[in-house]
Amino acid sequence: MKIIGINGSPRKANTYTLLKILLQSAEKTYSAKTEIIELRRKKIKPCIGCFKCSDQTEEDYACPSLKGDDMEEIITQLIEADGIIFGSPVYFGGVTAQLKAFMDRTQPLLRYSKNKFKNCLRNKVGGALVVGGNRNGGLEATIQGIHHYCFIQDMVVVGTGPDEQPGCYLGAAGFSGTHPTKGSRVLDAVLSDPLAVYSAEVLGRRVGEMCNIIEAGR
Amino acid sequence: MKIIGINGSPRKANTYTLLKILLQSAEKTYSAKTEIIELRRKKIKPCIGCFKCSDQTEEDYACPSLKGDDMEEIITQLIEADGIIFGSPVYFGGVTAQLKAFMDRTQPLLRYSKNKFKNCLRNKVGGALVVGGNRNGGLEATIQGIHHYCFIQDMVVVGTGPDEQPGCYLGAAGFSGTHPTKGSRVLDAVLSDPLAVYSAEVLGRRVGEMCNIIEAGR
Amino acid sequence: MKIIGINGSPRKANTYTLLKILLQSAEKTYSAKTEIIELRRKKIKPCIGCFKCSDQTEEDYACPSLKGDDMEEIITQLIEADGIIFGSPVYFGGVTAQLKAFMDRTQPLLRYSKNKFKNCLRNKVGGALVVGGNRNGGLEATIQGIHHYCFIQDMVVVGTGPDEQPGCYLGAAGFSGTHPTKGSRVLDAVLSDPLAVYSAEVLGRRVGEMCNIIEAGR
Amino acid sequence: MKIIGINGSPRKANTYTLLKILLQSAEKTYSAKTEIIELRRKKIKPCIGCFKCSDQTEEDYACPSLKGDDMEEIITQLIEADGIIFGSPVYFGGVTAQLKAFMDRTQPLLRYSKNKFKNCLRNKVGGALVVGGNRNGGLEATIQGIHHYCFIQDMVVVGTGPDEQPGCYLGAAGFSGTHPTKGSRVLDAVLSDPLAVYSAEVLGRRVGEMCNIIEAGR
Repeated sequence: MKIIGINGSPRKANTYTLLKILLQSAEKTYSAKTEIIELRRKKIKPCIGCFKCSDQTEEDYACPSLKGDDMEEIITQLIEADGIIFGSPVYFGGVTAQLKAFMDRTQPLLRYSKNKFKNCLRNKVGGALVVGGNRNGGLEATIQGIHHYCFIQDMVVVGTGPDEQPGCYLGAAGFSGTHPTKGSRVLDAVLSDPLAVYSAEVLGRRVGEMCNIIEAGR
Repeated sequence: MKIIGINGSPRKANTYTLLKILLQSAEKTYSAKTEIIELRRKKIKPCIGCFKCSDQTEEDYACPSLKGDDMEEIITQLIEADGIIFGSPVYFGGVTAQLKAFMDRTQPLLRYSKNKFKNCLRNKVGGALVVGGNRNGGLEATIQGIHHYCFIQDMVVVGTGPDEQPGCYLGAAGFSGTHPTKGSRVLDAVLSDPLAVYSAEVLGRRVGEMCNIIEAGR
Repeated sequence: MKIIGINGSPRKANTYTLLKILLQSAEKTYSAKTEIIELRRKKIKPCIGCFKCSDQTEEDYACPSLKGDDMEEIITQLIEADGIIFGSPVYFGGVTAQLKAFMDRTQPLLRYSKNKFKNCLRNKVGGALVVGGNRNGGLEATIQGIHHYCFIQDMVVVGTGPDEQPGCYLGAAGFSGTHPTKGSRVLDAVLSDPLAVYSAEVLGRRVGEMCNIIEAGR
Repeated sequence: MKIIGINGSPRKANTYTLLKILLQSAEKTYSAKTEIIELRRKKIKPCIGCFKCSDQTEEDYACPSLKGDDMEEIITQLIEADGIIFGSPVYFGGVTAQLKAFMDRTQPLLRYSKNKFKNCLRNKVGGALVVGGNRNGGLEATIQGIHHYCFIQDMVVVGTGPDEQPGCYLGAAGFSGTHPTKGSRVLDAVLSDPLAVYSAEVLGRRVGEMCNIIEAGR
């Protein structure tokens, strides 16, 4: 079982910390192999809406227009995964522009493609991990945005599982604004938020459980 | 395989029509047994927030406070299902009060229970079917509300699958306002909406497919 | 200036407590007259989708089908208001069935009416107040559902204003699960949540401010 | 009265066409001065989450870290506006990465700033315009994401007003997938969608009306 975490944060900070906890939980409980893809270290140009990816039939590149940046490599990695966690700090009630750029560039993986990438995320298990500097500051909305993406890619979407006090039903959700003056500047502030840690652990187990079921059931 | 459709409409009209199409699609493709529960024929008192369902340990009734209405029977039916479709016309951007009353009364099925109903919807496959009288009139928001419910009940949530032109990625979505003067008053108006019919058919297949996978994989 | 708070909770508990704080904040800062309508004390039958309210032209009753319950009286009160706060505990990621029943029954106030109730909530200021027993447990989604309602009624929608640390940008949001064993059973648990109290106070001021602006500007 | 439309599309296509219609509607009815800011012609680096904008007190630049790109100029323009329309094609259930990058870079305009940009979008009127290639394909969710942004910036948010058949209650919403084979590739496909055109016209009038009220009432 392979679970990939995509980190949409421009910093190595709270989203990374929580994503690490989530993946370790899946490793421990389901012997999952895990990997974090740090978008901040990748070059990803935003989609230009040219529709070439939908029209091409034999081209090797997922995106004929912007080939040469890091998307091809990332797509290759994603194809290997059974589960994918999309992690983002909450920026204005949604994912970062960096994560959105990645999402938009997966257009060639959709049902509209005519080549080898078509529907390649189908039936992979999707989960969302978010970190907000304000309470009720867009965490749920950001998770719903990630889920929306997963549904469009025809993934299977799960929340945090049957545990009591999940910290958030929809996914892993951390609060990074715990420090009285430094707020979200503290790089591992989520470690002071027990429900954040707990929700990451339960989502890790929940995604692992569902990867197992789907692998066995297909 | 058993798939239950819950019809939250106060009328036998477009939501029923579309739900029937959806279930027939699952019957045809996956030999699913199906059943529609018509909430408009049931007596369901709204939850009074007494918390007794969470506290009781041996009580036979899911809800000790409101026992005697039709919820006990419906819950018994739901426990048999592999997949559940929640169907509703769009009323003010959300499900009907009737469907919400049903949802609220499933509190005893949550993780917080201490009796036999605890987590009984867990890993059932959930899907959403909605009918709106206005285009972009709350159909997506209503589906997201239904999905939110499913996540809280720890169900597995799927959208409309890999087909092109799904009519709606998130679930089955019909437009009932096609008649120039009668609008949604026309009881089977959704039959004039090819994307409504199509989205119901694909969601029926998608839920059936996922019930199969989960049944085989557990 | 008149601001009405509608309490959709089946209990006199945390939603009431927070709504009271919100309205007192508007009273103090803007000398607003305020009133709480307790839906739990009202008889409101759910909408049956008969469309009679849209078709009637001279009928005195907003709803010709269900006249005799308390909706007529509540509608008369709402017409007097400059601002309306919709308050609800979070039940399964949304408003209570009780509040939804009230919302659904305001269909005769919509743009589709042909009588005196048409568009009668237009340009009133709308705000949302919610109380959740779980962190990130649907508070944002419930507020968005209330806002959706307000937009459909063509109201003017505001969040919590320019203060720092609003507790929630979208509206007043309280956490009632503070007690380690009793959780939301504690009737005034939100008083232990400083951000809940603060967000109610700032939303009270924000709605008052906007009522003033709209009254002066029309 | 000045209303600015921000076009988050990477193409000069349907979003531009609809935005133009919306702004002309405001020009005609309220003699508004209007302007379209084409993000595709601007250089906007994504926010790096450095928090320097919140900490600075006297710096002339809104963003001390990424100064030199086009954000400073756009912010200067926005300060002049009474109303702002955020326009985007629907990419994976949300705004484009390009529009999100713009949004994220307005962090220095928030309540957390200590300098002249603090709260500078407060009480401006916000509206959303979206174009989707699929029906129910994320249009509502994208509008809700834009509204969420507006609330965080403490703007006043309006929907499409009191007209019947608004095409979408929440904002202007167009369908660009009308062509049987070319779909959204057709640059002015929304002109074949009467409800798209209508919803843009009514939102233009609604934003103009509210700008007038707020200008007069402050």
